[in-house]
Amino acid sequence: MGKLFRQDYTVTFYATDMSQQIKLSHLINHALFVSGAQAYGLGISDQAIFEEHGLVWIVTDYEIEIKRLPRFLETITIETEAVSYNKLFCYREFRVFDQAGQLLVTILATFVLMDYATRRVRPVLEELVAPFEAVYSKSSRRGAKYPDLPATSEQVRQVTYFDMDMNGHVNNSRYIDWLFDSLTLDFLQAHLPKKIAVKYAKEIHYGAEVTTAVALDGRISHHTIRTAEGICTQAMIEWESKTELY
Amino acid sequence: MGKLFRQDYTVTFYATDMSQQIKLSHLINHALFVSGAQAYGLGISDQAIFEEHGLVWIVTDYEIEIKRLPRFLETITIETEAVSYNKLFCYREFRVFDQAGQLLVTILATFVLMDYATRRVRPVLEELVAPFEAVYSKSSRRGAKYPDLPATSEQVRQVTYFDMDMNGHVNNSRYIDWLFDSLTLDFLQAHLPKKIAVKYAKEIHYGAEVTTAVALDGRISHHTIRTAEGICTQAMIEWESKTELY
Repeated sequence: MGKLFRQDYTVTFYATDMSQQIKLSHLINHALFVSGAQAYGLGISDQAIFEEHGLVWIVTDYEIEIKRLPRFLETITIETEAVSYNKLFCYREFRVFDQAGQLLVTILATFVLMDYATRRVRPVLEELVAPFEAVYSKSSRRGAKYPDLPATSEQVRQVTYFDMDMNGHVNNSRYIDWLFDSLTLDFLQAHLPKKIAVKYAKEIHYGAEVTTAVALDGRISHHTIRTAEGICTQAMIEWESKTELY
Repeated sequence: MGKLFRQDYTVTFYATDMSQQIKLSHLINHALFVSGAQAYGLGISDQAIFEEHGLVWIVTDYEIEIKRLPRFLETITIETEAVSYNKLFCYREFRVFDQAGQLLVTILATFVLMDYATRRVRPVLEELVAPFEAVYSKSSRRGAKYPDLPATSEQVRQVTYFDMDMNGHVNNSRYIDWLFDSLTLDFLQAHLPKKIAVKYAKEIHYGAEVTTAVALDGRISHHTIRTAEGICTQAMIEWESKTELY
Protein backbone atom coordinates (compact mmCIF):
# COMPACT_ATOMS: atom_id res chain seq x y z
CA MET A 1 0.00 0.00 0.00
CA GLY A 2 1.22 3.46 -0.91
CA LYS A 3 0.77 6.47 1.33
CA LEU A 4 -2.77 7.82 1.19
CA PHE A 5 -3.36 11.50 0.62
CA ARG A 6 -6.76 13.25 0.62
CA GLN A 7 -8.13 16.67 -0.20
CA ASP A 8 -11.63 18.09 -0.36
CA TYR A 9 -12.87 20.02 -3.36
CA THR A 10 -16.13 21.86 -3.98
CA VAL A 11 -17.32 21.75 -7.59
CA THR A 12 -17.35 25.28 -9.04
CA PHE A 13 -19.55 26.66 -11.82
CA TYR A 14 -16.66 26.65 -14.26
CA ALA A 15 -15.88 23.01 -13.48
CA THR A 16 -19.30 21.89 -14.69
CA ASP A 17 -21.01 21.31 -18.01
CA MET A 18 -24.53 22.09 -19.20
CA SER A 19 -25.90 19.18 -17.18
CA GLN A 20 -24.52 20.68 -13.92
CA GLN A 21 -22.13 17.73 -13.54
CA ILE A 22 -18.37 18.08 -13.30
CA LYS A 23 -16.51 17.94 -16.62
CA LEU A 24 -14.49 14.76 -16.57
CA SER A 25 -11.46 16.71 -17.86
CA HIS A 26 -11.77 19.02 -14.88
CA LEU A 27 -12.06 16.14 -12.43
CA ILE A 28 -8.89 14.62 -13.90
CA ASN A 29 -7.11 17.97 -13.77
CA HIS A 30 -8.06 18.45 -10.16
CA ALA A 31 -7.11 14.88 -9.26
CA LEU A 32 -3.66 15.55 -10.72
CA PHE A 33 -3.54 18.73 -8.66
CA VAL A 34 -4.14 16.60 -5.54
CA SER A 35 -1.35 14.15 -6.40
CA GLY A 36 0.84 17.18 -7.13
CA ALA A 37 0.07 18.46 -3.63
CA GLN A 38 1.04 15.06 -2.17
CA ALA A 39 4.34 15.13 -4.10
CA TYR A 40 5.02 18.69 -2.99
CA GLY A 41 4.46 17.72 0.64
CA LEU A 42 6.94 14.87 0.26
CA GLY A 43 9.61 17.16 -1.21
CA ILE A 44 9.42 15.74 -4.74
CA SER A 45 7.26 18.30 -6.50
CA ASP A 46 7.02 18.43 -10.29
CA GLN A 47 9.12 21.59 -10.20
CA ALA A 48 11.85 19.97 -8.10
CA ILE A 49 11.98 16.94 -10.42
CA PHE A 50 12.24 19.18 -13.44
CA GLU A 51 14.93 21.38 -11.93
CA GLU A 52 17.02 18.54 -10.54
CA HIS A 53 16.56 15.90 -13.25
CA GLY A 54 15.08 17.62 -16.33
CA LEU A 55 12.21 15.13 -16.10
CA VAL A 56 8.43 15.55 -16.20
CA TRP A 57 5.70 13.07 -15.26
CA ILE A 58 3.40 12.30 -18.17
CA VAL A 59 0.29 10.14 -18.31
CA THR A 60 0.21 7.19 -20.73
CA ASP A 61 -3.11 5.55 -19.73
CA TYR A 62 -6.26 6.17 -17.79
CA GLU A 63 -8.84 3.63 -16.69
CA ILE A 64 -11.82 5.35 -15.17
CA GLU A 65 -14.94 3.94 -13.51
CA ILE A 66 -17.82 6.25 -12.78
CA LYS A 67 -20.69 5.43 -10.43
CA ARG A 68 -21.88 9.04 -10.43
CA LEU A 69 -20.27 12.29 -11.53
CA PRO A 70 -20.01 14.97 -8.83
CA ARG A 71 -22.45 17.85 -9.21
CA PHE A 72 -22.28 21.65 -9.10
CA LEU A 73 -21.54 22.87 -5.53
CA GLU A 74 -21.07 19.31 -4.23
CA THR A 75 -18.08 18.83 -1.94
CA ILE A 76 -16.07 15.73 -2.76
CA THR A 77 -13.01 14.11 -1.25
CA ILE A 78 -10.26 13.09 -3.65
CA GLU A 79 -7.99 10.36 -2.28
CA THR A 80 -4.84 9.34 -4.09
CA GLU A 81 -2.29 6.58 -3.71
CA ALA A 82 0.80 5.61 -5.71
CA VAL A 83 -0.06 1.93 -5.85
CA SER A 84 2.92 0.29 -7.51
CA TYR A 85 5.70 0.79 -10.03
CA ASN A 86 8.10 -1.15 -12.22
CA LYS A 87 11.10 -0.23 -14.34
CA LEU A 88 9.15 2.18 -16.55
CA PHE A 89 5.63 2.62 -15.26
CA CYS A 90 4.09 4.08 -12.11
CA TYR A 91 0.48 3.24 -11.28
CA ARG A 92 -1.52 5.71 -9.25
CA GLU A 93 -5.11 5.46 -8.14
CA PHE A 94 -7.52 8.28 -7.42
CA ARG A 95 -10.76 7.65 -5.55
CA VAL A 96 -13.48 10.28 -5.41
CA PHE A 97 -15.95 10.11 -2.52
CA ASP A 98 -19.06 12.08 -1.71
CA GLN A 99 -19.68 13.53 1.75
CA ALA A 100 -21.45 10.33 2.84
CA GLY A 101 -18.30 8.36 2.03
CA GLN A 102 -19.77 6.72 -1.09
CA LEU A 103 -17.25 5.99 -3.82
CA LEU A 104 -18.21 8.00 -6.93
CA VAL A 105 -15.28 7.66 -9.32
CA THR A 106 -12.01 5.75 -9.51
CA ILE A 107 -9.23 6.78 -11.84
CA LEU A 108 -6.25 4.52 -12.41
CA ALA A 109 -3.49 6.53 -14.08
CA THR A 110 -0.26 5.19 -15.53
CA PHE A 111 2.66 7.60 -15.47
CA VAL A 112 6.12 7.58 -16.99
CA LEU A 113 9.00 9.98 -16.57
CA MET A 114 9.86 11.87 -19.76
CA ASP A 115 13.08 13.75 -20.39
CA TYR A 116 11.78 17.23 -21.20
CA ALA A 117 14.60 18.04 -23.64
CA THR A 118 14.78 14.76 -25.60
CA ARG A 119 11.05 13.83 -25.23
CA ARG A 120 12.17 10.23 -24.46
CA VAL A 121 10.79 8.04 -21.69
CA ARG A 122 13.29 7.38 -18.92
CA PRO A 123 13.40 4.58 -16.33
CA VAL A 124 11.72 5.29 -13.02
CA LEU A 125 14.12 6.76 -10.48
CA GLU A 126 13.80 4.99 -7.14
CA GLU A 127 14.30 8.24 -5.21
CA LEU A 128 11.28 9.79 -6.97
CA VAL A 129 8.86 7.03 -5.93
CA ALA A 130 10.20 5.83 -2.56
CA PRO A 131 8.60 8.72 -0.60
CA PHE A 132 5.14 7.60 -1.82
CA GLU A 133 5.80 4.11 -0.36
CA ALA A 134 4.58 2.53 -3.59
CA VAL A 135 5.30 -1.17 -4.01
CA TYR A 136 7.77 -2.38 -6.63
CA SER A 137 6.17 -5.06 -8.80
CA LYS A 138 8.08 -6.35 -11.81
CA SER A 139 5.06 -6.99 -14.03
CA SER A 140 3.32 -4.34 -16.08
CA ARG A 141 -0.44 -3.94 -15.96
CA ARG A 142 -2.24 -5.30 -18.96
CA GLY A 143 -3.85 -2.31 -20.65
CA ALA A 144 -7.24 -2.22 -22.35
CA LYS A 145 -7.58 -3.76 -25.83
CA TYR A 146 -8.75 -1.26 -28.42
CA PRO A 147 -10.50 -2.97 -31.35
CA ASP A 148 -10.01 -1.41 -34.77
CA LEU A 149 -13.50 -0.45 -36.00
CA PRO A 150 -14.38 1.68 -39.02
CA ALA A 151 -15.20 5.22 -37.87
CA THR A 152 -18.81 6.33 -38.16
CA SER A 153 -17.93 10.00 -37.72
CA GLU A 154 -14.77 12.12 -37.97
CA GLN A 155 -13.90 15.67 -37.08
CA VAL A 156 -10.84 17.73 -37.84
CA ARG A 157 -9.57 20.39 -35.47
CA GLN A 158 -6.50 22.60 -35.09
CA VAL A 159 -4.52 22.46 -31.87
CA THR A 160 -4.87 25.84 -30.21
CA TYR A 161 -2.72 27.75 -27.73
CA PHE A 162 -4.83 26.81 -24.73
CA ASP A 163 -4.83 23.10 -25.61
CA MET A 164 -1.14 23.11 -24.67
CA ASP A 165 0.39 22.89 -21.23
CA MET A 166 3.75 23.85 -19.80
CA ASN A 167 5.12 20.40 -20.67
CA GLY A 168 5.05 21.63 -24.27
CA HIS A 169 2.33 19.36 -25.64
CA VAL A 170 -1.45 19.05 -25.68
CA ASN A 171 -2.56 18.47 -22.11
CA ASN A 172 -3.88 14.95 -21.50
CA SER A 173 -7.19 16.26 -20.18
CA ARG A 174 -7.94 18.10 -23.46
CA TYR A 175 -8.16 14.74 -25.23
CA ILE A 176 -10.94 13.79 -22.85
CA ASP A 177 -12.97 16.81 -23.99
CA TRP A 178 -12.27 15.82 -27.60
CA LEU A 179 -13.60 12.31 -26.99
CA PHE A 180 -16.88 13.67 -25.68
CA ASP A 181 -17.04 16.31 -28.42
CA SER A 182 -16.90 13.52 -31.02
CA LEU A 183 -20.44 12.59 -30.02
CA THR A 184 -23.61 14.57 -30.65
CA LEU A 185 -25.30 16.80 -28.11
CA ASP A 186 -28.37 14.52 -28.20
CA PHE A 187 -26.20 11.52 -27.36
CA LEU A 188 -24.33 13.31 -24.57
CA GLN A 189 -27.55 14.55 -23.03
CA ALA A 190 -29.14 11.08 -23.13
CA HIS A 191 -26.18 9.08 -21.77
CA LEU A 192 -23.77 8.92 -18.87
CA PRO A 193 -20.18 7.66 -19.15
CA LYS A 194 -19.58 4.63 -16.91
CA LYS A 195 -16.13 3.31 -17.90
CA ILE A 196 -13.39 4.98 -19.87
CA ALA A 197 -10.06 3.67 -21.09
CA VAL A 198 -7.58 6.00 -22.77
CA LYS A 199 -4.13 5.22 -24.10
CA TYR A 200 -1.75 8.04 -25.03
CA ALA A 201 0.82 6.78 -27.54
CA LYS A 202 2.23 9.97 -29.09
CA GLU A 203 2.43 13.58 -27.99
CA ILE A 204 0.57 16.22 -30.00
CA HIS A 205 2.19 19.62 -30.51
CA TYR A 206 1.10 23.13 -31.40
CA GLY A 207 -0.04 23.62 -34.99
CA ALA A 208 -1.00 19.98 -35.53
CA GLU A 209 -4.18 19.16 -37.38
CA VAL A 210 -6.01 16.58 -35.30
CA THR A 211 -8.59 14.10 -36.56
CA THR A 212 -10.90 12.62 -33.96
CA ALA A 213 -12.75 9.54 -35.17
CA VAL A 214 -15.50 7.65 -33.38
CA ALA A 215 -17.31 4.35 -33.97
CA LEU A 216 -20.39 3.78 -31.87
CA ASP A 217 -20.95 0.08 -31.21
CA GLY A 218 -23.90 -0.57 -28.93
CA ARG A 219 -23.13 0.92 -25.53
CA ILE A 220 -19.49 1.52 -26.34
CA SER A 221 -17.90 4.34 -28.29
CA HIS A 222 -14.46 3.60 -29.76
CA HIS A 223 -12.22 6.57 -30.44
CA THR A 224 -8.97 7.33 -32.19
CA ILE A 225 -7.17 10.64 -32.25
CA ARG A 226 -4.57 11.02 -34.98
CA THR A 227 -2.35 13.57 -36.65
CA ALA A 228 -0.10 13.37 -39.72
CA GLU A 229 2.28 11.40 -37.45
CA GLY A 230 -0.25 8.58 -37.04
CA ILE A 231 -2.49 7.44 -34.21
CA CYS A 232 -1.75 9.41 -31.05
CA THR A 233 -4.50 8.19 -28.76
CA GLN A 234 -7.03 5.36 -28.54
CA ALA A 235 -10.00 5.32 -26.23
CA MET A 236 -13.20 3.50 -25.35
CA ILE A 237 -16.15 4.79 -23.40
CA GLU A 238 -18.94 2.60 -22.06
CA TRP A 239 -22.19 4.54 -21.77
CA GLU A 240 -25.41 4.08 -19.88
CA SER A 241 -28.67 5.46 -21.17
CA LYS A 242 -30.19 7.93 -18.71
CA THR A 243 -33.64 6.51 -19.37
CA GLU A 244 -32.51 3.13 -17.96
CA LEU A 245 -31.85 4.81 -14.66
CA TYR A 246 -35.42 5.68 -13.82
CA MET B 1 -18.66 51.63 -1.54
CA GLY B 2 -19.96 48.12 -1.84
CA LYS B 3 -19.12 45.38 0.64
CA LEU B 4 -15.65 44.00 0.09
CA PHE B 5 -15.11 40.26 -0.14
CA ARG B 6 -11.74 38.49 -0.51
CA GLN B 7 -10.49 34.98 -1.12
CA ASP B 8 -7.04 33.52 -1.68
CA TYR B 9 -6.30 31.25 -4.60
CA THR B 10 -3.16 29.32 -5.53
CA VAL B 11 -2.60 28.98 -9.27
CA THR B 12 -2.77 25.30 -10.27
CA PHE B 13 -1.06 23.58 -13.20
CA TYR B 14 -4.31 23.32 -15.09
CA ALA B 15 -4.99 27.03 -14.64
CA THR B 16 -1.83 27.97 -16.53
CA ASP B 17 -0.71 28.13 -20.14
CA MET B 18 2.59 27.17 -21.79
CA SER B 19 4.25 30.30 -20.38
CA GLN B 20 3.42 29.20 -16.80
CA GLN B 21 1.11 32.20 -16.39
CA ILE B 22 -2.55 31.94 -15.47
CA LYS B 23 -4.94 31.68 -18.43
CA LEU B 24 -6.96 34.87 -18.42
CA SER B 25 -10.12 32.81 -18.96
CA HIS B 26 -9.32 30.86 -15.80
CA LEU B 27 -8.66 34.02 -13.80
CA ILE B 28 -12.03 35.39 -14.91
CA ASN B 29 -13.73 32.09 -14.08
CA HIS B 30 -12.20 32.03 -10.64
CA ALA B 31 -13.02 35.70 -10.03
CA LEU B 32 -16.67 34.89 -10.82
CA PHE B 33 -16.41 31.99 -8.40
CA VAL B 34 -15.32 34.46 -5.70
CA SER B 35 -18.25 36.81 -6.37
CA GLY B 36 -20.48 33.73 -6.36
CA ALA B 37 -19.14 32.89 -2.92
CA GLN B 38 -19.89 36.43 -1.73
CA ALA B 39 -23.45 36.18 -3.06
CA TYR B 40 -23.91 32.77 -1.44
CA GLY B 41 -22.76 34.16 1.91
CA LEU B 42 -25.31 36.97 1.60
CA GLY B 43 -28.15 34.54 0.87
CA ILE B 44 -28.56 35.53 -2.78
CA SER B 45 -26.71 32.76 -4.56
CA ASP B 46 -27.10 32.19 -8.30
CA GLN B 47 -29.11 29.08 -7.47
CA ALA B 48 -31.47 30.94 -5.16
CA ILE B 49 -32.02 33.68 -7.76
CA PHE B 50 -32.75 31.09 -10.42
CA GLU B 51 -35.11 29.12 -8.23
CA GLU B 52 -36.99 32.14 -6.87
CA HIS B 53 -37.02 34.41 -9.91
CA GLY B 54 -36.03 32.33 -12.96
CA LEU B 55 -33.20 34.81 -13.51
CA VAL B 56 -29.49 34.35 -14.17
CA TRP B 57 -26.66 36.91 -14.01
CA ILE B 58 -24.90 37.30 -17.32
CA VAL B 59 -21.86 39.40 -18.23
CA THR B 60 -22.21 42.05 -20.94
CA ASP B 61 -18.79 43.76 -20.72
CA TYR B 62 -15.34 43.34 -19.26
CA GLU B 63 -12.65 45.97 -18.94
CA ILE B 64 -9.45 44.41 -17.73
CA GLU B 65 -6.10 45.97 -16.79
CA ILE B 66 -3.13 43.73 -16.29
CA LYS B 67 0.08 44.80 -14.57
CA ARG B 68 1.30 41.22 -14.32
CA LEU B 69 -0.44 37.87 -14.73
CA PRO B 70 -0.23 35.52 -11.73
CA ARG B 71 2.14 32.59 -12.19
CA PHE B 72 2.03 28.84 -11.58
CA LEU B 73 1.91 28.08 -7.83
CA GLU B 74 1.62 31.77 -6.90
CA THR B 75 -0.95 32.54 -4.22
CA ILE B 76 -3.10 35.54 -5.06
CA THR B 77 -5.89 37.36 -3.27
CA ILE B 78 -9.01 38.12 -5.27
CA GLU B 79 -11.04 41.00 -3.90
CA THR B 80 -14.47 41.84 -5.25
CA GLU B 81 -16.95 44.66 -4.79
CA ALA B 82 -20.33 45.38 -6.32
CA VAL B 83 -19.53 49.01 -7.06
CA SER B 84 -22.77 50.46 -8.40
CA TYR B 85 -25.91 49.72 -10.34
CA ASN B 86 -28.67 51.39 -12.31
CA LYS B 87 -31.97 50.27 -13.78
CA LEU B 88 -30.37 47.60 -15.98
CA PHE B 89 -26.69 47.27 -15.24
CA CYS B 90 -24.64 46.17 -12.24
CA TYR B 91 -20.97 47.09 -12.13
CA ARG B 92 -18.63 44.84 -10.18
CA GLU B 93 -14.90 45.21 -9.73
CA PHE B 94 -12.38 42.46 -9.08
CA ARG B 95 -8.88 43.27 -7.87
CA VAL B 96 -6.15 40.66 -7.87
CA PHE B 97 -3.24 41.16 -5.48
CA ASP B 98 0.01 39.26 -4.98
CA GLN B 99 1.18 38.24 -1.51
CA ALA B 100 3.09 41.52 -1.12
CA GLY B 101 -0.18 43.41 -1.63
CA GLN B 102 0.75 44.65 -5.12
CA LEU B 103 -2.20 45.07 -7.46
CA LEU B 104 -1.75 42.68 -10.42
CA VAL B 105 -5.04 42.77 -12.30
CA THR B 106 -8.32 44.68 -12.19
CA ILE B 107 -11.45 43.41 -13.88
CA LEU B 108 -14.49 45.61 -14.22
CA ALA B 109 -17.47 43.46 -15.13
CA THR B 110 -20.90 44.64 -16.18
CA PHE B 111 -23.76 42.28 -15.35
CA VAL B 112 -27.42 42.15 -16.28
CA LEU B 113 -30.16 39.84 -15.11
CA MET B 114 -31.51 37.59 -17.86
CA ASP B 115 -34.78 35.67 -17.74
CA TYR B 116 -33.60 32.11 -18.32
CA ALA B 117 -36.77 31.05 -20.14
CA THR B 118 -37.29 34.07 -22.43
CA ARG B 119 -33.55 35.01 -22.77
CA ARG B 120 -34.58 38.67 -22.27
CA VAL B 121 -32.78 41.17 -20.07
CA ARG B 122 -34.79 42.18 -17.00
CA PRO B 123 -34.51 45.27 -14.79
CA VAL B 124 -32.30 44.94 -11.73
CA LEU B 125 -34.23 43.80 -8.67
CA GLU B 126 -33.38 45.96 -5.68
CA GLU B 127 -33.53 42.97 -3.32
CA LEU B 128 -30.82 41.20 -5.35
CA VAL B 129 -28.29 44.03 -5.06
CA ALA B 130 -29.07 45.62 -1.69
CA PRO B 131 -27.15 42.98 0.31
CA PHE B 132 -23.96 43.91 -1.58
CA GLU B 133 -24.38 47.56 -0.47
CA ALA B 134 -23.73 48.72 -4.01
CA VAL B 135 -24.54 52.37 -4.76
CA TYR B 136 -27.41 53.28 -7.06
CA SER B 137 -26.22 55.65 -9.75
CA LYS B 138 -28.62 56.62 -12.53
CA SER B 139 -26.02 56.95 -15.28
CA SER B 140 -24.60 54.05 -17.27
CA ARG B 141 -20.86 53.64 -17.72
CA ARG B 142 -19.62 54.61 -21.13
CA GLY B 143 -18.27 51.42 -22.67
CA ALA B 144 -15.21 51.12 -24.90
CA LYS B 145 -15.48 52.23 -28.56
CA TYR B 146 -14.73 49.42 -30.98
CA PRO B 147 -13.51 50.74 -34.35
CA ASP B 148 -14.54 48.80 -37.42
CA LEU B 149 -11.30 47.65 -39.08
CA PRO B 150 -10.91 45.16 -41.93
CA ALA B 151 -9.86 41.78 -40.52
CA THR B 152 -6.34 40.60 -41.29
CA SER B 153 -7.11 37.04 -40.27
CA GLU B 154 -10.23 34.95 -39.74
CA GLN B 155 -10.91 31.52 -38.29
CA VAL B 156 -14.04 29.42 -38.29
CA ARG B 157 -14.88 27.05 -35.43
CA GLN B 158 -17.81 24.97 -34.28
CA VAL B 159 -19.25 25.49 -30.82
CA THR B 160 -18.59 22.33 -28.84
CA TYR B 161 -20.28 20.77 -25.83
CA PHE B 162 -17.71 22.03 -23.35
CA ASP B 163 -17.88 25.61 -24.66
CA MET B 164 -21.36 25.75 -23.13
CA ASP B 165 -22.31 26.40 -19.53
CA MET B 166 -25.37 25.64 -17.47
CA ASN B 167 -26.91 28.99 -18.50
CA GLY B 168 -27.42 27.33 -21.88
CA HIS B 169 -24.99 29.40 -23.96
CA VAL B 170 -21.27 29.66 -24.66
CA ASN B 171 -19.59 30.65 -21.41
CA ASN B 172 -18.23 34.20 -21.46
CA SER B 173 -14.74 33.03 -20.57
CA ARG B 174 -14.51 30.79 -23.68
CA TYR B 175 -14.64 33.91 -25.86
CA ILE B 176 -11.50 35.12 -24.08
CA ASP B 177 -9.65 31.96 -25.18
CA TRP B 178 -10.95 32.51 -28.71
CA LEU B 179 -9.57 36.07 -28.75
CA PHE B 180 -6.10 34.83 -27.85
CA ASP B 181 -6.37 31.89 -30.25
CA SER B 182 -6.98 34.33 -33.09
CA LEU B 183 -3.33 35.34 -32.83
CA THR B 184 -0.28 33.28 -33.73
CA LEU B 185 1.84 31.35 -31.26
CA ASP B 186 4.81 33.57 -32.12
CA PHE B 187 2.79 36.67 -31.31
CA LEU B 188 1.42 35.25 -28.05
CA GLN B 189 4.87 34.17 -26.92
CA ALA B 190 6.38 37.59 -27.70
CA HIS B 191 3.67 39.77 -26.13
CA LEU B 192 1.77 40.28 -22.91
CA PRO B 193 -1.82 41.56 -22.74
CA LYS B 194 -2.07 44.83 -20.82
CA LYS B 195 -5.66 46.06 -21.38
CA ILE B 196 -8.68 44.21 -22.64
CA ALA B 197 -12.18 45.39 -23.43
CA VAL B 198 -14.88 42.90 -24.38
CA LYS B 199 -18.51 43.55 -25.23
CA TYR B 200 -20.98 40.67 -25.40
CA ALA B 201 -23.94 41.64 -27.57
CA LYS B 202 -25.55 38.30 -28.47
CA GLU B 203 -25.54 34.85 -26.93
CA ILE B 204 -24.01 31.96 -28.89
CA HIS B 205 -25.66 28.54 -28.71
CA TYR B 206 -24.70 24.94 -29.35
CA GLY B 207 -24.15 24.01 -32.98
CA ALA B 208 -23.35 27.55 -34.13
CA GLU B 209 -20.51 28.12 -36.55
CA VAL B 210 -18.40 30.90 -35.12
CA THR B 211 -16.08 33.19 -37.09
CA THR B 212 -13.39 34.94 -35.09
CA ALA B 213 -11.80 37.85 -36.95
CA VAL B 214 -8.81 39.91 -35.88
CA ALA B 215 -7.16 43.09 -37.15
CA LEU B 216 -3.79 43.87 -35.66
CA ASP B 217 -3.15 47.60 -35.58
CA GLY B 218 0.14 48.48 -33.92
CA ARG B 219 -0.05 47.45 -30.27
CA ILE B 220 -3.77 46.80 -30.40
CA SER B 221 -5.64 43.78 -31.70
CA HIS B 222 -9.26 44.37 -32.66
CA HIS B 223 -11.56 41.36 -32.59
CA THR B 224 -15.04 40.44 -33.68
CA ILE B 225 -16.81 37.16 -33.05
CA ARG B 226 -19.81 36.50 -35.23
CA THR B 227 -22.28 33.79 -36.19
CA ALA B 228 -24.99 33.63 -38.85
CA GLU B 229 -26.97 35.89 -36.46
CA GLY B 230 -24.44 38.71 -36.83
CA ILE B 231 -21.77 40.16 -34.56
CA CYS B 232 -21.94 38.58 -31.11
CA THR B 233 -18.87 40.04 -29.47
CA GLN B 234 -16.38 42.85 -30.02
CA ALA B 235 -13.07 43.14 -28.23
CA MET B 236 -9.79 45.02 -28.14
CA ILE B 237 -6.54 43.94 -26.55
CA GLU B 238 -3.58 46.24 -25.98
CA TRP B 239 -0.30 44.32 -25.99
CA GLU B 240 3.19 44.97 -24.75
CA SER B 241 6.20 43.40 -26.39
CA LYS B 242 8.11 41.22 -23.92
CA THR B 243 11.42 42.51 -25.29
CA GLU B 244 10.51 46.04 -24.15
CA LEU B 245 10.41 44.75 -20.58
CA TYR B 246 14.07 43.86 -20.25
